Amino acid sequence: MDVAVHGVGTSHFGRQPDRPLIDLAWDAVREALADAGTDQVDAVYVGTVFGAPGVAQRVLSALGITGIPILTLENACASGTTALVEGHEAVRTGRYGRVLALGLEQMSTTFGGAIHPESSDAEGLAGLALPALYAMAAHRYLQTGAATAEQLATVSVKNHAHALHNPRAQYSGSYTVEQVLGSRMIADPLTLLQCCPTSDGAAAAVLAPATGGAREIPVRGLAIRSGDLWDHRSPHVWGYDLVAATAALAYEAAGIAPGDVDLFEVHDAFTIGEVATTEALGIVGHGDGGKAAESGRTAVGGASPVNPSGGLLSRGHPLGATGLAQVAEVVWQLRGDAGGRQVDGARIGLVETMGGGVSGIDGNACVVAVLGA
Amino acid sequence: MDVAVHGVGTSHFGRQPDRPLIDLAWDAVREALADAGTDQVDAVYVGTVFGAPGVAQRVLSALGITGIPILTLENACASGTTALVEGHEAVRTGRYGRVLALGLEQMSTTFGGAIHPESSDAEGLAGLALPALYAMAAHRYLQTGAATAEQLATVSVKNHAHALHNPRAQYSGSYTVEQVLGSRMIADPLTLLQCCPTSDGAAAAVLAPATGGAREIPVRGLAIRSGDLWDHRSPHVWGYDLVAATAALAYEAAGIAPGDVDLFEVHDAFTIGEVATTEALGIVGHGDGGKAAESGRTAVGGASPVNPSGGLLSRGHPLGATGLAQVAEVVWQLRGDAGGRQVDGARIGLVETMGGGVSGIDGNACVVAVLGA
Repeated sequence: MDVAVHGVGTSHFGRQPDRPLIDLAWDAVREALADAGTDQVDAVYVGTVFGAPGVAQRVLSALGITGIPILTLENACASGTTALVEGHEAVRTGRYGRVLALGLEQMSTTFGGAIHPESSDAEGLAGLALPALYAMAAHRYLQTGAATAEQLATVSVKNHAHALHNPRAQYSGSYTVEQVLGSRMIADPLTLLQCCPTSDGAAAAVLAPATGGAREIPVRGLAIRSGDLWDHRSPHVWGYDLVAATAALAYEAAGIAPGDVDLFEVHDAFTIGEVATTEALGIVGHGDGGKAAESGRTAVGGASPVNPSGGLLSRGHPLGATGLAQVAEVVWQLRGDAGGRQVDGARIGLVETMGGGVSGIDGNACVVAVLGA
Repeated sequence: MDVAVHGVGTSHFGRQPDRPLIDLAWDAVREALADAGTDQVDAVYVGTVFGAPGVAQRVLSALGITGIPILTLENACASGTTALVEGHEAVRTGRYGRVLALGLEQMSTTFGGAIHPESSDAEGLAGLALPALYAMAAHRYLQTGAATAEQLATVSVKNHAHALHNPRAQYSGSYTVEQVLGSRMIADPLTLLQCCPTSDGAAAAVLAPATGGAREIPVRGLAIRSGDLWDHRSPHVWGYDLVAATAALAYEAAGIAPGDVDLFEVHDAFTIGEVATTEALGIVGHGDGGKAAESGRTAVGGASPVNPSGGLLSRGHPLGATGLAQVAEVVWQLRGDAGGRQVDGARIGLVETMGGGVSGIDGNACVVAVLGA
């Protein structure tokens, strides 16, 4: 049967080490249930990356949600949207009547110091943390001449400006390209303002069969995939091929083309990520991502708005919560409730999350979801 | 459509800190794929509790399994059987043609010292680790007079004896009740030989539509559930009500009664766990679990064999792998391939896993699966 998002909710995003994860989750769950007009669900799919074992039951039992199937999913930065995909499938097949998808992460308490790689983490042991991986992708991309460092920086300028209109965003600001490039270097060529922050937050969505209600947002097509073995001869940067392959599946499932989408919430963990993703999603041609950002095409008011929420760069990136925060933004946009960052007349929105730093493959996981009618 | 287990595999179980998790997983996956006569699957569901983020993709990419949906599930000690349940559902509904369910855990490298509770872990911060939780359950159970400490100990005697015939078991031995009770005290009244060990291992199962093949084992009924809010007035020990409720759903799905089951693989993380579970599953009446173990009824050769593999107490308990190791044992038993621990004429087997130490609820998760025709 057809499935719709009946309600969404999020916490505030930011460094909130003194707010227990239960409080953050409660903000998101309470808002989502109220938005859906219900206080009862038949199953919960929880996405988290660094949540301790049992965190889902710990959080949900404190909210009185017990005695039903509760599953915790880890799928790198796509954990929240993986919960969406699995919850959607359960409603689509009639397994459960109403499902809560919940993403949560408290990173400020987890990332207080160095992350110690576990013994099989070859990349971590080699120092290849994600900023380094994205930095190498950025260097390779810039080396092709497709874009300039200034064009990459415009992604940060744009997303911080979008977040000025998002009261739940962790950061926002009216930056210049020069300020972005002049901020502290994190992993050359990626400066501080080109990297997503350390974030705490939660986001939730209630899924149920579509009934045609005015506030429901139909789930039009979804896809989930892990990366292929990395081919070093690829003309694309790391992750591009995974996003492109997953998007192709999602567009086919939704029966649409990239040009049919009115707004995009994509995985801009680093500026290079948004640039490569706008290309991989077919929003612009290969090599045109930097120019599109510079031209304003991907800003709210442009032809193909990307990350009106502020994206991971500005709204924040609490890993497991991110995908469902993207879903919440698209739902608000398609309802016309997005305030100062509203994309006028938006009817179809797309969510994309990808992540994971296993260097032998082209990304651990990617989810693409098309919402709207 | 009807679903069957087409192949199973496991690693050896034991303290194997020098064997990379990839090697353990490879032993299980290679055996399961060969047993199923295939080298291709359409999706992978991975169960692990303490596996680092991305461990599934790290392990699977090393085995050349990439470019398909890969989902990692954490559901306490039921993580492996949660992967079974979700994989089964995907095949049942035609979402994927062939699914690999993989459970893995390397505990010897994770549990090298004290476990530091995270900030919301009220039980851990209070010192209420799982041995303490089970010890309190054991004290309460013994206090009712339903069983004696000696009867609890017979569970350990039985399962260590069963494991003498299981070459993959971590431990085995011909112990007396006195030796079990005389072993080092871990959490009064539970002595060392009444507690499952720290284990490394992996287990896998290949699920696909049933075709009636001679070596296939049909999945007859499944259920998954989390615990209700704990009712301190309950006449039962912790976890009993969750296991009973989940089993009722599974028996209904399978269309059978407890008396129809020829063998049981259940969650004997501690001796009290098996005793309470034999009652909760309806194998014996409430309060008869200790007596049943003492009488030999639950031994191989008895009327209701429980844990012919040696169970968690002797085969070992690598958390995420345990549920699928139970499934492998039942598959081998129903094929008549269980060697010296074979339950003669076994046609229907039941797997039960439960776990989780959130004290406000009656267990984080429970899965019950009925296999066989």
